[in-house]
Amino acid sequence: MNDSYLNFVNSPFGARLARSLGLPKPEVLRRYRADQPEFDGLIAIGAGREPHLLDALANLVTSIGVTSVAHESAGLWVPLANRHGLMTGRFEPAESGSHGKLTALLFDASGIEDSSQLEPLHGFFHDTLRSLGKCGRIIVLGRPPEACATPRQWTAQRALEGLTRSLGKEARRGITANLVYVEQGAENGIEATLRFFLSPRSAYVSGQVVRIGVRDGADALPAFDWNQALAGRRAVVTGAARGIGASIASVLAAQGAHVIGIDIPSARDALDSTMRQLNGTALAFDIAAPEAPAQIAAALDEQGVDIVVHNAGITKDKTIAKMTDAAWQSVIDINLSAQERIDDALLAAGILRDGGRIVAVSSISGIAGNLGQTNYATSKAGVIGRVQSMAPHLRARGITINAVAPGFIETQMTAKIPLTIREAGRRMNSMSQGGQPVDVAQTIAWLAHPGSAGVSGQIVRVCGQSLIGA
Amino acid sequence: MNDSYLNFVNSPFGARLARSLGLPKPEVLRRYRADQPEFDGLIAIGAGREPHLLDALANLVTSIGVTSVAHESAGLWVPLANRHGLMTGRFEPAESGSHGKLTALLFDASGIEDSSQLEPLHGFFHDTLRSLGKCGRIIVLGRPPEACATPRQWTAQRALEGLTRSLGKEARRGITANLVYVEQGAENGIEATLRFFLSPRSAYVSGQVVRIGVRDGADALPAFDWNQALAGRRAVVTGAARGIGASIASVLAAQGAHVIGIDIPSARDALDSTMRQLNGTALAFDIAAPEAPAQIAAALDEQGVDIVVHNAGITKDKTIAKMTDAAWQSVIDINLSAQERIDDALLAAGILRDGGRIVAVSSISGIAGNLGQTNYATSKAGVIGRVQSMAPHLRARGITINAVAPGFIETQMTAKIPLTIREAGRRMNSMSQGGQPVDVAQTIAWLAHPGSAGVSGQIVRVCGQSLIGA
Repeated sequence: MNDSYLNFVNSPFGARLARSLGLPKPEVLRRYRADQPEFDGLIAIGAGREPHLLDALANLVTSIGVTSVAHESAGLWVPLANRHGLMTGRFEPAESGSHGKLTALLFDASGIEDSSQLEPLHGFFHDTLRSLGKCGRIIVLGRPPEACATPRQWTAQRALEGLTRSLGKEARRGITANLVYVEQGAENGIEATLRFFLSPRSAYVSGQVVRIGVRDGADALPAFDWNQALAGRRAVVTGAARGIGASIASVLAAQGAHVIGIDIPSARDALDSTMRQLNGTALAFDIAAPEAPAQIAAALDEQGVDIVVHNAGITKDKTIAKMTDAAWQSVIDINLSAQERIDDALLAAGILRDGGRIVAVSSISGIAGNLGQTNYATSKAGVIGRVQSMAPHLRARGITINAVAPGFIETQMTAKIPLTIREAGRRMNSMSQGGQPVDVAQTIAWLAHPGSAGVSGQIVRVCGQSLIGA
Repeated sequence: MNDSYLNFVNSPFGARLARSLGLPKPEVLRRYRADQPEFDGLIAIGAGREPHLLDALANLVTSIGVTSVAHESAGLWVPLANRHGLMTGRFEPAESGSHGKLTALLFDASGIEDSSQLEPLHGFFHDTLRSLGKCGRIIVLGRPPEACATPRQWTAQRALEGLTRSLGKEARRGITANLVYVEQGAENGIEATLRFFLSPRSAYVSGQVVRIGVRDGADALPAFDWNQALAGRRAVVTGAARGIGASIASVLAAQGAHVIGIDIPSARDALDSTMRQLNGTALAFDIAAPEAPAQIAAALDEQGVDIVVHNAGITKDKTIAKMTDAAWQSVIDINLSAQERIDDALLAAGILRDGGRIVAVSSISGIAGNLGQTNYATSKAGVIGRVQSMAPHLRARGITINAVAPGFIETQMTAKIPLTIREAGRRMNSMSQGGQPVDVAQTIAWLAHPGSAGVSGQIVRVCGQSLIGA
């Protein structure tokens, strides 16, 4: 729960010592606080070729109320911004000592159709990266490669991933770098996602690739208030008594949702206490029990739900030669099969309403595999399959399904890992530190957002761009 | 080029010292040698539910001439093997001291349709893993998730990836673990791929997921001899003068191909010498020159080619703020755009014959990004896009296109990396060592094989299951 090294090297003496010894100095990440402005400062805009997203970006910049400057690669930005009534100027390459002026770098690469047209990306980041401040944001925007008209365009768009991931590794200082592919026709659906990646809410999300697709009924986004986006929504969270689950419940409630927390009967007291603080509802069920799906459905039937977060999960680590059949089975059942059974019950009865959101918690172990976790990794890889397979099925009902895959998150569980292994896990990412439960929770809140209707079938790591698993 | 730690800890004194200090002891990997049998020993077969691939596996076991034993999960194997005239028996769980009896573990998971049916995988690997000898092989076979009929089946098949990657990390001792998804109808196209993964040729390929699809003209595989599979074929290799390129040329030639090596004019002497040894043809061209595609096409026009290996590549590492425009452009152009131009020329003129093979060299940096390599990672991510986008276009002509993505390979280039960084790169994988150029070359030879007609659009890492990039 407590990264004492992070605290130490950010003290005056610790910082001096770390510098003189050449030790890594993780940045204290800026996280969302209700009493601080979510967006501020100066954003630099770049673009290649004939960009398709500048209009959408102008709407975004207007909406979040920041000031922008146009890099020379984005000559179209100045007149466009002026038409939108935005204050804007031209970016002047950094003089020495002018570091830290910019809070975000946005590059619209959607018009790039050939590998020979990638040069403006170099020009933009070459000129601007040193001017990006601590905990700054890099967002590259492109078109989904698999939807491109020609192999040449697909190739060039796919190349953006190598660039963005490299920028994340180079930038350091708490800076995140992410790639957002916007399907043609989905331009008006980007705001919730870009707000998330620009915000301190995405403090520990870097090196990710997210696709925004055209949703059915494209212009019928329900009305919502950006400050209370989940007002009037009902959200079920499994494993909500403590830890990451309690943090998810808390973040959803803070955005206005009524949270129904589920946890096992033995955690009833903690669950009750967590839900009381959030004015939520506590349901003590063992989700692995055969009767649980019907019980949960019955408890939710009358009012329905809008958001289901499958957070409950267990580990029973052992190398497979020493793993009992029971340890294998219970991990697969609770982490994977129970999710399938519960969703089937909620979907069949229409309890999860049209336009709903399902978010499942996977894991880096489910992506990369892990020693001693054949059961856990199998279950969490299955969660990825579940998200990918269900997304097209749920599309017609306007329901999205996505997963978050946490990396090293500081919890009571990771606090028990032996120090040297814990330190390795903590530092092996672009942030040189573990994440917090709230980082997972904020990512889930973005996926649960009414504005995220075009985001489905995605796996988003919350890992600080861990070395493990790309 | 030389991993002295590997040599030391495998000496009698070094092994004792490493053991007493708790140091990692990388296994000396068994690699293919023409004077040793490629397949031997005892293979254990497991299966779940109603397996679909046992017939194909029986054909494989017959063809490579090994002995099999059936795990209790694969009850159908014994009568089936008997029908094929195979010697077989039942697997008895290992007694202490009986380790090392098995050379491979094969599990047919193709019949698993639900997450509740995954248990036989645990039973099989629980019982057999300790009996698998050094440099043994684990292969899990399934159905491509995205082609499954139901979300439940897709989910269960996708879960196999978490298991296989975990097994690779647990097994150690030079053991590889890979997952092969066989499309329905592609059962008769698995032999070349399973031979590769069972063979010492795949010594440094672990944690990979490969799909075998139905090829057009499914039963019309050209005749070939498994020992000289490339006899009569003409193979172009770029960057063939030295290093990995020379190794590729050498392995292709050893399998009977006539190799046409291309390298820049300044490497002409080395290229001539390499090609002379292989009875190949040397072509000194700068592939980045505008006239190169036409020149290469003209030089190959008369006899045509069957195999094109895009190996030539350069690095010009610098953080992007310090990277010149020329360093960016030349890396993108040589590593990516030149491949596009050359393939276009060869394909338009029909010089690359129907049924041909294209193999491009990508990199782990193209998957995960890398500090100081924005240009290189962008180019190598683009190569992945090229493979994925071209595969469906080339399908009707029976041409496959795939990429290999090397991890840490011991070359003159890596020998120049500072010791501590080199050691970290070398050890951060399931083999605890770097790979050899021949490991990349053998992987390419498998993809270039006439029997690999169903393998296209795949990215295969040659990285010993590097921690980086999953």
